Amino acid sequence: MTLKGKLIDDVVLFEKLAIEELHNRSFYGRPKGDTLEVSITESAYLIYMGKIIVEYKGTDLDFKDFFLKASSLLKNFELYYIVYKDLRERGYYIQPAVTGFRVYPRGGHPGKTPAEFFIYVTSERIPLLLSAIITHLGTVENLKKRLVLAIVDEDSDLTYYEVKKTVPSGTYKLDSEKKLSTASLLEDRVMVWDPEASAALQKQGFFGKPMDEGHLQLSLIESCYLLKNGVLEIEDRDKLKLDFADFSTIASKIESNFMVKYAVYENLRNNGLVPKTGFKFGTHFRVYKKIEDLAKLPHSDYLIHAIEQDHIFSLQQLSRAVRLANSVRKDMIYGAVDSHVQFFVVGRMRL
Amino acid sequence: MTLKGKLIDDVVLFEKLAIEELHNRSFYGRPKGDTLEVSITESAYLIYMGKIIVEYKGTDLDFKDFFLKASSLLKNFELYYIVYKDLRERGYYIQPAVTGFRVYPRGGHPGKTPAEFFIYVTSERIPLLLSAIITHLGTVENLKKRLVLAIVDEDSDLTYYEVKKTVPSGTYKLDSEKKLSTASLLEDRVMVWDPEASAALQKQGFFGKPMDEGHLQLSLIESCYLLKNGVLEIEDRDKLKLDFADFSTIASKIESNFMVKYAVYENLRNNGLVPKTGFKFGTHFRVYKKIEDLAKLPHSDYLIHAIEQDHIFSLQQLSRAVRLANSVRKDMIYGAVDSHVQFFVVGRMRL
Repeated sequence: MTLKGKLIDDVVLFEKLAIEELHNRSFYGRPKGDTLEVSITESAYLIYMGKIIVEYKGTDLDFKDFFLKASSLLKNFELYYIVYKDLRERGYYIQPAVTGFRVYPRGGHPGKTPAEFFIYVTSERIPLLLSAIITHLGTVENLKKRLVLAIVDEDSDLTYYEVKKTVPSGTYKLDSEKKLSTASLLEDRVMVWDPEASAALQKQGFFGKPMDEGHLQLSLIESCYLLKNGVLEIEDRDKLKLDFADFSTIASKIESNFMVKYAVYENLRNNGLVPKTGFKFGTHFRVYKKIEDLAKLPHSDYLIHAIEQDHIFSLQQLSRAVRLANSVRKDMIYGAVDSHVQFFVVGRMRL
Repeated sequence: MTLKGKLIDDVVLFEKLAIEELHNRSFYGRPKGDTLEVSITESAYLIYMGKIIVEYKGTDLDFKDFFLKASSLLKNFELYYIVYKDLRERGYYIQPAVTGFRVYPRGGHPGKTPAEFFIYVTSERIPLLLSAIITHLGTVENLKKRLVLAIVDEDSDLTYYEVKKTVPSGTYKLDSEKKLSTASLLEDRVMVWDPEASAALQKQGFFGKPMDEGHLQLSLIESCYLLKNGVLEIEDRDKLKLDFADFSTIASKIESNFMVKYAVYENLRNNGLVPKTGFKFGTHFRVYKKIEDLAKLPHSDYLIHAIEQDHIFSLQQLSRAVRLANSVRKDMIYGAVDSHVQFFVVGRMRL
């Protein structure tokens, strides 16, 4: 049976019969007293399915006309439609929500189970604010749901990503009891000249990279951490001693976001992890949960990128980072730096 | 035998004996009359090897003192040293050059063979101008050498990338004889409503993505190409016809670098290739050389990113792009748009 509704403002209204036919059987729309209110996205899908006819100002709209009308009424309508159709056709029950959909678990539906996922619908082209993700994560956490980004690309293909908070931790502890050596800050890296200190830093903390037998190259960030923890003294090329403030000022001149990276590095180290550069993966750090033997370096566990609280994601870059991390079986994690560091893991998901 | 040289300005000078010992045997330095001139980088390595002693203002410098001195004399000395040592220890003969090294092929050396590679030494932290790459490519091409970027990362690890010009081409031809249909520009994509035209565009040109049976979604860039070639007419939501200028103006408002991407897209299509979005790989396009059957889509051959002539590469992003492309066995290609489009393939190499 084809039901007839009326497009009024930005919803389609049906009479009582539709509550039974559309809502109670298949969970379309929301009953309001004796009428059923169906969203524009749901309506477009129902027209496509041949289940409803929609009248607007006395005329019945065909699929094309309704689609054109919907696209001018609802911002991002085409994105919503693509996501809605995809989920519905794969057997999920869905209800509209602000900026997306609530999706019920397989076998569940409104009235029987709570929704499991909150789907945030967006397009490849729309920059995504970290603050928006944090807001949504707060909301879904309170409701015990999972946050999923549905990203529609240029070719109208869909990719789902799940975003979760995480607290990475490992088993490594820094032996910060004693000062090991004095190192030199060269142009943009630090050299440990003493063979014993070089060996100790490598073996005990997996710091640095041996330049040859006896000399160890430390990165700026490693050196800064060792300096702050009293394990290392650092001099400049004129043999003037640098304290933490001097060193971090110089490092910030070399690399403007040094302190953001440093905050994440320090948090990871203090939580027992071993971060090394993630350059080959295009991220700030590759991170090891456990290293037993430097000669047999395991695969790293995480790729971690340091960002600021006001970060805006390019979804193309997010997509590339997650794809690369997953292709080497690592988690892609963002460390957002404020007064403290919050970590978010982003992973491709198959809904 | 340990030879003694003198550090004068930014070179180390040796007497005649060194020409035989260092140059003729092992291709260090450059003879200048009766003396041998050895660069700072070569000298640091020779001190480390115990082959030379260097005197500066009456004092012999040990490795540490020479290294500190060198680091203050030569910008990026540490980078040069890391690359020089790596190549030399793997059996290559090397001569210094501006911004890098000339490297002789295995079994070759100065005086016997021409150098095979020009190595451009840089660090993860230094942004790389496309214009610099183009200049270097021009130079090495004239000299029939290959251009290699040696990138030293934060942890002093080294990665080599080769950059080459390329001209991607495929076998596909657009049948642009007749106009197929009129499509609608919605918010940021275009819909073809006519089932026959939808099928034809899909089958003959691998354009678009079917939204359902009969309706085809085209990306902005595909639509623009089809419009320009007279295969499609496009109307806005108010059914006003748009010409190429109207359409590209609207598309450029939606996506500010639309015309740059379009120039690359058009070039690829005109050269017989089928570009689709590379969103899942974080690039503008994934590109097929040949598609025989849409139902059995092969793996794409290239990932192609459109850039402008004044592009500045972040080496971290370059690294990520190349790593990702190689992990899915594709070439990473940049399409640089000027009055025409030039393509560059960047690949990891193991020297």
